[in-house]
Amino acid sequence: MSAHTDMSSVLEQLREALSERVDTTDAALDAARADKSGHAASGRPLAVVHAASISDVQATLRIAHASGTPVVTRGAGTGLAGGANAGTGEIALSVRAMDSILEVRADDLLAVVEPGIVNADLNAALFEHGLWWAPDPASREISTVGGNIATGAGGLLCAKYGVVRDAVLALDVVLADGRLVHLGHRSVKGVTGYDLTALMIGSEGTLGVVVGATLKLRRLIPGEVCTLNATFADVRAAAVAAAAVTASGTQPAIMELMDATSLANVHTYLELPPPPPGAAQLTVQTDGPTATAEAEAISAVLQHAGGTVRVATTPEEGELLLRIRRSMHPATEKLGMSLVEDVSVPRSVLPDMFDEIARIEKQYGLVIPTIAHAGDGNLHPNFTFQGDEVPDVIWGAASDLFRSALRLGGTLTGEHGIGVLKRQWLADELGDDQWHLQQQIKAVFDPTGILNPGKVFAR
Amino acid sequence: MSAHTDMSSVLEQLREALSERVDTTDAALDAARADKSGHAASGRPLAVVHAASISDVQATLRIAHASGTPVVTRGAGTGLAGGANAGTGEIALSVRAMDSILEVRADDLLAVVEPGIVNADLNAALFEHGLWWAPDPASREISTVGGNIATGAGGLLCAKYGVVRDAVLALDVVLADGRLVHLGHRSVKGVTGYDLTALMIGSEGTLGVVVGATLKLRRLIPGEVCTLNATFADVRAAAVAAAAVTASGTQPAIMELMDATSLANVHTYLELPPPPPGAAQLTVQTDGPTATAEAEAISAVLQHAGGTVRVATTPEEGELLLRIRRSMHPATEKLGMSLVEDVSVPRSVLPDMFDEIARIEKQYGLVIPTIAHAGDGNLHPNFTFQGDEVPDVIWGAASDLFRSALRLGGTLTGEHGIGVLKRQWLADELGDDQWHLQQQIKAVFDPTGILNPGKVFAR
Repeated sequence: MSAHTDMSSVLEQLREALSERVDTTDAALDAARADKSGHAASGRPLAVVHAASISDVQATLRIAHASGTPVVTRGAGTGLAGGANAGTGEIALSVRAMDSILEVRADDLLAVVEPGIVNADLNAALFEHGLWWAPDPASREISTVGGNIATGAGGLLCAKYGVVRDAVLALDVVLADGRLVHLGHRSVKGVTGYDLTALMIGSEGTLGVVVGATLKLRRLIPGEVCTLNATFADVRAAAVAAAAVTASGTQPAIMELMDATSLANVHTYLELPPPPPGAAQLTVQTDGPTATAEAEAISAVLQHAGGTVRVATTPEEGELLLRIRRSMHPATEKLGMSLVEDVSVPRSVLPDMFDEIARIEKQYGLVIPTIAHAGDGNLHPNFTFQGDEVPDVIWGAASDLFRSALRLGGTLTGEHGIGVLKRQWLADELGDDQWHLQQQIKAVFDPTGILNPGKVFAR
Repeated sequence: MSAHTDMSSVLEQLREALSERVDTTDAALDAARADKSGHAASGRPLAVVHAASISDVQATLRIAHASGTPVVTRGAGTGLAGGANAGTGEIALSVRAMDSILEVRADDLLAVVEPGIVNADLNAALFEHGLWWAPDPASREISTVGGNIATGAGGLLCAKYGVVRDAVLALDVVLADGRLVHLGHRSVKGVTGYDLTALMIGSEGTLGVVVGATLKLRRLIPGEVCTLNATFADVRAAAVAAAAVTASGTQPAIMELMDATSLANVHTYLELPPPPPGAAQLTVQTDGPTATAEAEAISAVLQHAGGTVRVATTPEEGELLLRIRRSMHPATEKLGMSLVEDVSVPRSVLPDMFDEIARIEKQYGLVIPTIAHAGDGNLHPNFTFQGDEVPDVIWGAASDLFRSALRLGGTLTGEHGIGVLKRQWLADELGDDQWHLQQQIKAVFDPTGILNPGKVFAR
């Protein structure tokens, strides 16, 4: 908040420009403090603006820019790094109500959408056209396309179908001072100037507000889907088997790993008979015209690696096998609060990363239920705890986890982003020179520092 | 060149640091003035530095930075926009000799390479591992991976297999002052900080010098390849047929269009019987496990659209059909100098873009032989002329062409870049606000303006 204005004046200006779109109810202000990370901002924002149009977003940013008021852009609030949490003196700018599909072009394989549309709602609409948008974060039923873009959200299908930056052609962005720019292009190819579309993806509300997105679509592929799982004596055996699958030349659409603790938790949650003690599981799905042949090849690799393989013989049975994996999150929630981590490593070192997790469990006296998108090397170790605040021992263990991932050639975050929770490790991965370059790029887009301050870069 | 030093001192410093890697022979200096665009810098560079290592690149940039000497990075000099042309007072920094493959990982589907390796040489080496790197510019036999990255080079396979930015995981970059930074990651997923890897792709030597690249590879897919062509009464009919194929739900690996003038030129060049007057041609190739079925479906679409279809029955015949398309460039070279243009439009408006070209031919009294990567909407209209300089009438027609592409929702350049030849139209596409943002990003990386000055942004 700059000196030349005060909060009541900002609120007055917002109300004058945006009338009933400005929400200062207790419920709205409290909701805007938090996301799904378990972390919340320490105070309440000044107001929540429920933008319904590009001009609402522009009006909000013009007022914020003139008054030096911080702006935290939010979608559905399903983030896992605290990146959209708004606190004292900040405007929470929600684009959740901007949820229209503006255009679908089956011939050009693109759709133009507003940022607030929920991923699953978009895909339900695209299904009618024989199309889909590939990014499929586990949160797809509740997270928005704008949020997926802001975090660079991943999901289960990335090894075969790519990440968010492979699936966005163009973005309409409102800059910090309220100007609207159009980045990218509608054509398959385009190399005019720097790729600011890619720069915006994963920028977590620090460079501008995405108010429109031109998405690159895929056609729904005819052909069956095959689902199977394989149970192993321990998590290392499962990780070795997963690496063997990726090295074998087959390409599963989905390959998910659950360690023993996760698997046992889910069995309890779903009231299934308990798995063998220590057992870990891989769940694999193949799709497309060679789904059956690929599933057979993968079964052979998994058996050779010591797995007990169960191939689903009906779509219903396939759905049941996947439901075990999908129940991980609700099952873990029963255990208390969770810090869901998100390191990503080259696929070949997945077994080594699980060795590191075992070491960290022993060293810090913790149990760390872990699932992995094993097809792409992205792990989600879950640190569970009681109470509101992450205990120091868990931050110590998480810090050790991050450094282990970096040592193995990996990265701090595969798909959740930095937000507030990982900013202290950012420079460890980027190096000081790159960290400073990135901060200067931030300053180009946001010279007065009003866009999501304290996120990503603060340390 | 800044005031505090002079050229002879810079040359002396370069020789002291890099001895025989500094080349001031007439042949080297003249070669560094030009690329394959037909355009050359007006003077000769100060020297050509043949870097053999990262430290050679760093040493060159440290001297350039301290003395304020411009640096123009070059690979094989096959660019088509003048982006790597070095002139008076500039250091031409060649990374062509840095051509090693440092690592190939079939299990992680990645390779780490130096920038000077030729695309086709890399792919020949990867073939031994059952792998390939998808970017396949028509120049692949002569262009380097570093140049492909610097320009965001495309090629024939982009609709099915993606563009360069989909195929690069990480880059090692020497900054303007000689510092080395590592951008990106080795894992499939990674969203730590801003995506500077994508920012560097297509930046045409204006942000830093790529000295290493971690490439995302694909496995060679088992299965046959089917090739066919279809002849149409005129180019509009061929373009309508191409749009019908992309709208039909099939996915050709290659779909190339040749207009009547191109086709007739190539038939003359290859000493084939002349095609019917006015006839245009599509050449299609399908691959992968469903290649045959897709080729049959595409044949039906093309016949329905009025095409006379010829399906290759042997690999040799398929190769012959593709050779007609591949001979376009040498056939055009026989006609004199060429300005090869590169607009890209959404696939559905390909027929409209050909209508615009027909209008421009009539309006300016020109013949504009045009080929198109019809599967992705990227057109290469060729403006042929005699003499060394592009005549004004051709620039007038090209300008009209660019504006037509933008009106149709397209872009100035699909895969060649801006270089010097298109910089005057850059702001027309980006808009002034984005143009200024991009210039400021350039200034973050290159505060003293020594990296390829006058390229991309000058107007």
